[in-house]
Amino acid sequence: MDTFHVNTPERNTFVNITAEVRHLLAKHQFQDGLAVVYCPHTTAAITVNEGYDPDVVHDMLLWLGRAVPHAQPGFRHGEGNSDAHVKASLVGSSATLFVEKGDLVLGQWQAVFLCEFDGPRTRTVHVKWIGAK
Amino acid sequence: MDTFHVNTPERNTFVNITAEVRHLLAKHQFQDGLAVVYCPHTTAAITVNEGYDPDVVHDMLLWLGRAVPHAQPGFRHGEGNSDAHVKASLVGSSATLFVEKGDLVLGQWQAVFLCEFDGPRTRTVHVKWIGAK
Amino acid sequence: MDTFHVNTPERNTFVNITAEVRHLLAKHQFQDGLAVVYCPHTTAAITVNEGYDPDVVHDMLLWLGRAVPHAQPGFRHGEGNSDAHVKASLVGSSATLFVEKGDLVLGQWQAVFLCEFDGPRTRTVHVKWIGAK
Repeated sequence: MDTFHVNTPERNTFVNITAEVRHLLAKHQFQDGLAVVYCPHTTAAITVNEGYDPDVVHDMLLWLGRAVPHAQPGFRHGEGNSDAHVKASLVGSSATLFVEKGDLVLGQWQAVFLCEFDGPRTRTVHVKWIGAK
Repeated sequence: MDTFHVNTPERNTFVNITAEVRHLLAKHQFQDGLAVVYCPHTTAAITVNEGYDPDVVHDMLLWLGRAVPHAQPGFRHGEGNSDAHVKASLVGSSATLFVEKGDLVLGQWQAVFLCEFDGPRTRTVHVKWIGAK
Repeated sequence: MDTFHVNTPERNTFVNITAEVRHLLAKHQFQDGLAVVYCPHTTAAITVNEGYDPDVVHDMLLWLGRAVPHAQPGFRHGEGNSDAHVKASLVGSSATLFVEKGDLVLGQWQAVFLCEFDGPRTRTVHVKWIGAK
């Protein structure tokens, strides 16, 4: 298992971590199987979406912020970040990627993101490599 | 593949199943790879989120209930549980966890939950163990 | 890795791809492990939900369309399909399925869907087979 850290500059932000995953892949010379990217936090998540136009992430964060407002009547959790927990389970704690011939199999516009919903923080990301059969 | 059952006491509830997964892991003495937790139902789901403060689950269920009301104009499905199907696809039918040195790799606050959206019922959970490489 | 293509007839639609995955499984005589179904697009997704009553998919699309409207104040992405990107990350880019004794382990009502959110298009689906251990 590999582990790296990501600094998130705002409360809600996506950080493109594709280059870090590719760097680890090259280091291991892993050829064929799965790269599973896992977030061990409950107020952050991992997703695959467009990495080319930053307006896509802007619009996704805008929608998430409107759909899951920070403060809501009836929320009980004392830390006041229940919105971040909701977003984390909607987006998911991991992404499963394919590796073929030593490279990630990503669509033309796809990138892997750490999704921060309660930053700024330093977040941990784990990656595990599973051979195909 | 392992299989166990979970009784869900309410229509909408999350049941912490981390101990069941850890119990199976110990029984198999599985050391290194993935534990994939799968829900074979279409009105329930699996998620990873905070297991420490029960108010987090309360707040997540509150948001889900507001965002996806039980009855909605235009819903056609005769069983009247379309809200549960929507929630199931938002949260997802499985969680992929890491195993290292014979234990689950979970963040400090993370737990694995069966998410019930159309209970009370007895639900089935499958777990499969995949070796790392 | 296997690859197949799916024609999507509308802007928002789910296409049941279970038979294609089962066909590939039979061709490989793969017996035991994971079938990971991956969507290399950023405005489409993969989910597992009910394949029996088409009204379930109708209701899921109805909810998604209401919750994530096509045009929204503040959206910046020039292609005008930010709603599709949001839906893609809510539903997720892959599904992890179990294979036992040469068949998919699906619940009674479960099917695997390619979820189109910006069609009509011809979409690509990848499947990778990972042996259990």
